[in-house]
Amino acid sequence: MLSTMQDVPLLISRILSHGSALHGTSQVTTWAGEGEPHRRTFAEIGDRAAQLAHALRDDLGVTPGSVLGTLMWNNAEHVEAYFAIPSMGAVLHTLNLRLPAEQLAWIVNHAADRVVIANGSLLPLLAPLLPHLTSVEHVVVSGPGDRSLLAGVTPQVHEYEELLAGKPTTYDWPELDERSAAAMCYTSGTTGDPKGVVYSHRSIYLHSMQVNMAQSMGLTDQDTSLIVVPQFHVNAWGLPHATFMTGVNMLMPERFLQPGPLAEMIEKEQPTHAAAVPTIWQGLLAELGERPRDVGSLTQVTIGGSACPPALMEAFDKLDMRVCHAWGMTETSPLGTVARPPAHVIGTAQEFEYRLTQGRFPAGVEARLTGPAGERLPWDGESAGELEVRGPWIAGAYYGGEGAEPLRPADKFSEDGWLKTGDVGTITPDGYLTLTDRAKDVIKSGGEWISSVELENALMAHPDVAEAAVVAVPDDKWGERPLATVVLKGGATADFTVLRSFLADEGKIAKWQLPERWTIIESVPKTSVGKFDKKVLRRRYAAGELDVTRI
Amino acid sequence: MLSTMQDVPLLISRILSHGSALHGTSQVTTWAGEGEPHRRTFAEIGDRAAQLAHALRDDLGVTPGSVLGTLMWNNAEHVEAYFAIPSMGAVLHTLNLRLPAEQLAWIVNHAADRVVIANGSLLPLLAPLLPHLTSVEHVVVSGPGDRSLLAGVTPQVHEYEELLAGKPTTYDWPELDERSAAAMCYTSGTTGDPKGVVYSHRSIYLHSMQVNMAQSMGLTDQDTSLIVVPQFHVNAWGLPHATFMTGVNMLMPERFLQPGPLAEMIEKEQPTHAAAVPTIWQGLLAELGERPRDVGSLTQVTIGGSACPPALMEAFDKLDMRVCHAWGMTETSPLGTVARPPAHVIGTAQEFEYRLTQGRFPAGVEARLTGPAGERLPWDGESAGELEVRGPWIAGAYYGGEGAEPLRPADKFSEDGWLKTGDVGTITPDGYLTLTDRAKDVIKSGGEWISSVELENALMAHPDVAEAAVVAVPDDKWGERPLATVVLKGGATADFTVLRSFLADEGKIAKWQLPERWTIIESVPKTSVGKFDKKVLRRRYAAGELDVTRI
Repeated sequence: MLSTMQDVPLLISRILSHGSALHGTSQVTTWAGEGEPHRRTFAEIGDRAAQLAHALRDDLGVTPGSVLGTLMWNNAEHVEAYFAIPSMGAVLHTLNLRLPAEQLAWIVNHAADRVVIANGSLLPLLAPLLPHLTSVEHVVVSGPGDRSLLAGVTPQVHEYEELLAGKPTTYDWPELDERSAAAMCYTSGTTGDPKGVVYSHRSIYLHSMQVNMAQSMGLTDQDTSLIVVPQFHVNAWGLPHATFMTGVNMLMPERFLQPGPLAEMIEKEQPTHAAAVPTIWQGLLAELGERPRDVGSLTQVTIGGSACPPALMEAFDKLDMRVCHAWGMTETSPLGTVARPPAHVIGTAQEFEYRLTQGRFPAGVEARLTGPAGERLPWDGESAGELEVRGPWIAGAYYGGEGAEPLRPADKFSEDGWLKTGDVGTITPDGYLTLTDRAKDVIKSGGEWISSVELENALMAHPDVAEAAVVAVPDDKWGERPLATVVLKGGATADFTVLRSFLADEGKIAKWQLPERWTIIESVPKTSVGKFDKKVLRRRYAAGELDVTRI
Repeated sequence: MLSTMQDVPLLISRILSHGSALHGTSQVTTWAGEGEPHRRTFAEIGDRAAQLAHALRDDLGVTPGSVLGTLMWNNAEHVEAYFAIPSMGAVLHTLNLRLPAEQLAWIVNHAADRVVIANGSLLPLLAPLLPHLTSVEHVVVSGPGDRSLLAGVTPQVHEYEELLAGKPTTYDWPELDERSAAAMCYTSGTTGDPKGVVYSHRSIYLHSMQVNMAQSMGLTDQDTSLIVVPQFHVNAWGLPHATFMTGVNMLMPERFLQPGPLAEMIEKEQPTHAAAVPTIWQGLLAELGERPRDVGSLTQVTIGGSACPPALMEAFDKLDMRVCHAWGMTETSPLGTVARPPAHVIGTAQEFEYRLTQGRFPAGVEARLTGPAGERLPWDGESAGELEVRGPWIAGAYYGGEGAEPLRPADKFSEDGWLKTGDVGTITPDGYLTLTDRAKDVIKSGGEWISSVELENALMAHPDVAEAAVVAVPDDKWGERPLATVVLKGGATADFTVLRSFLADEGKIAKWQLPERWTIIESVPKTSVGKFDKKVLRRRYAAGELDVTRI
């Protein structure tokens, strides 16, 4: 039987039209450092998004399917680009301004960006890149910055405000296929080339509804959200779209991401909600310790990107800021889980335990755990496996480049189309995820998995150990076995037998999981973002550069 | 450019799988009158929905596309049918047990229901109908009731619990097209045959997300929702689907819809939310006045179906029950608007005014007002026009019957596919709807509209008037003009000139809107649900049966 429902596609232009008309007085406030914050209503954002679309189409020749890069901080103009570009049928490509220049150039060329909209303050980053960008025909500059840096470049240079001036404030947004591309974002993988994830209008619309559900972030037009997570980082966790859908005010920090300005904008603008990675909050806590301020408006804090240390969560509890964990990745739009504890533990000791998990999957995200031999593992809170997810806002492939087929590498997508997250963890019977490892850091020993993170945490609990990293090394009998690399504290003496006994004591680590291979190192090599760089250790081991003791 | 998102359809089976696994301990509690309420967890509902699907497929020969009627109260078994039937690819057809028998038979035959699942307590209604039902092959009976009423009927009779017993508790739900039919509901129009609205998996899934958004009902697994609005009334406003999606506990009143039992179940089961039409609440208020009870758990009350009188809203405010208006119809799934006031009026005198409107449209519902000449009217809070809506959970046609094309009558659907709601009202600039009339009751006079409801309310404010109904009658010069039909209070004497002056006084009614035609009647004819039956008055006028005075 046929349904008699209307066939209305889920489009970003509908979020734009709705927000700018029905929530026209809600505001996007952009922080301006010493100066007065810049305020723009949703109605004005709607007008200006239409003006931007006219300018892009009529002055810059942007057509449906064109890819446009943005090299911008979180601000009102970036929100305008967020809505104008997909609504007109083009593709918004947010560029991560923290990437090394070479990688950034590779990404712009791979996506074939025809236009780059950049903040003036980022021209020192963009200008030296331009000679290496093969597809960029236009650069549009917004906000303060030294334009002379662009003297003599090949692409045409435009001023954002000049482009908009005098353009009509309405636009006849096309009726698109909801599955067409709306936005893209590249993952900065530690190995191989970056991979492009292409979001559809449908995926962004559904994700926005999900963010707005009461059991998720659940904000309303009575809220103001301080969006610290960058707009170039998985669409700022979907917040600009979600907030526009329900009239939530946005507070945008622009380039003022240091603890001092953040504390100041919280005190002055009184957001009720904020979203950022843990390091931002560590800094903010320290700042508030040194210079106390009234941050009482901020009652809900969404933390993602990496796990929130329990001590940080407790410190925020003391400030009456309620931290809520969320987990996701570029490939999951990103909302994969939200750690709202189940009703039956509210007010009990278990509540905090649930808040420390990565959270519960919403209805739109199906999850399963896969063990070392590809077997499905139960949701018993104990069996650890690689997390695989499926859903309408989960990637099923990577962008293959202009005219090329999408990429479906077997280590990232299962044969039946699920995303292999590369994260290893457990799931409770009621669907709460706890991540323990990255799949590539797990030691596959005799058909079982050993968590490197668990061994590291246990080792670092010993008073003599400053740091410890555990990596998998090949083993003839077991396939892989753990190698413990240990950094001793000053004055401490190495005794691997003592450390091994320490791990075994009180059943902390199962006997078969205890490392036989041990070595002392000067320091654990780190990536650019401060994570243990285990591939360096594996390489040094393979090259015979480590002095390994077997016990 | 192609999106790289997974193509995962929005299916009711996904809501079922999610709710029964991740919110497995949430409960459906069915009231049982004097006996202990019956409790079933979402996990059990999931198991039993799978058992029901097996029974329907294997024992009753139900196939994808089969239509199954339910003649049931709100209870756990009805929830099981809600999920099992669409999830297996068949179509759930909820039957309105308040309809006249003839209309009910017409509806069952038109939808070609192959199976009817009925509560035992409703067999006195069903049994006499069966000889008139042409397509029903099986009757499944659930719960207490006199089975002997079915002796000798043609369809095969089954016991619900016997069918389920021993069946597997998992089912391999098919991967359906999200646009395929999931459920249907007939509107009980006052004119012509009932019209079938066929909901899709997509429309129900999206509607459920909308219900769960914080700015809508916004419930979580910490809530219990008392679902008084019948499951045969537009899917109980979408609550069974929405609550299962987020683990909200359901409290189901079964057939105990009288004020006494409702008050008792609120006191004993402590729901936090309830949904029903105003008359239910009027009765509950009176009951609480006579027999006070602790109903303090109930803080949020959704009222729809017809407007909530201001006095009722104030009475609930005094009980700390927050009434929230919602507007919708069978054709809108039904959530069309929700009256959460905008942030800027919270705590001001305007807040109550906003709460009395029908509410604000969510992002998924586009709205426009059409004037008498088909022109678009502005959202200025003053221009009254017929409301037309569009969106992914709004009907674009009616069911045409088996194998027939869908029906798109021109008075119900615009040429560009919008639903003409038949409701006349205004919309504020920030998107709040206030309904003033049914389109068919508006008087179209010289290209302008006159509100019959406004005239009636003004007339009934006169101390001599007991009731008044105003209807449109043909007029050579103006097209239509108002005819005022007045019921005088006992002892009062008719003086139309006085009444006309009363209307004109203090600018209550514009001069050109004042009726010239007046008549006294004994009483205003009413429909079965107590509404003014204006078509009777129009017919009596046309037949010359009314003694009309022109002034």
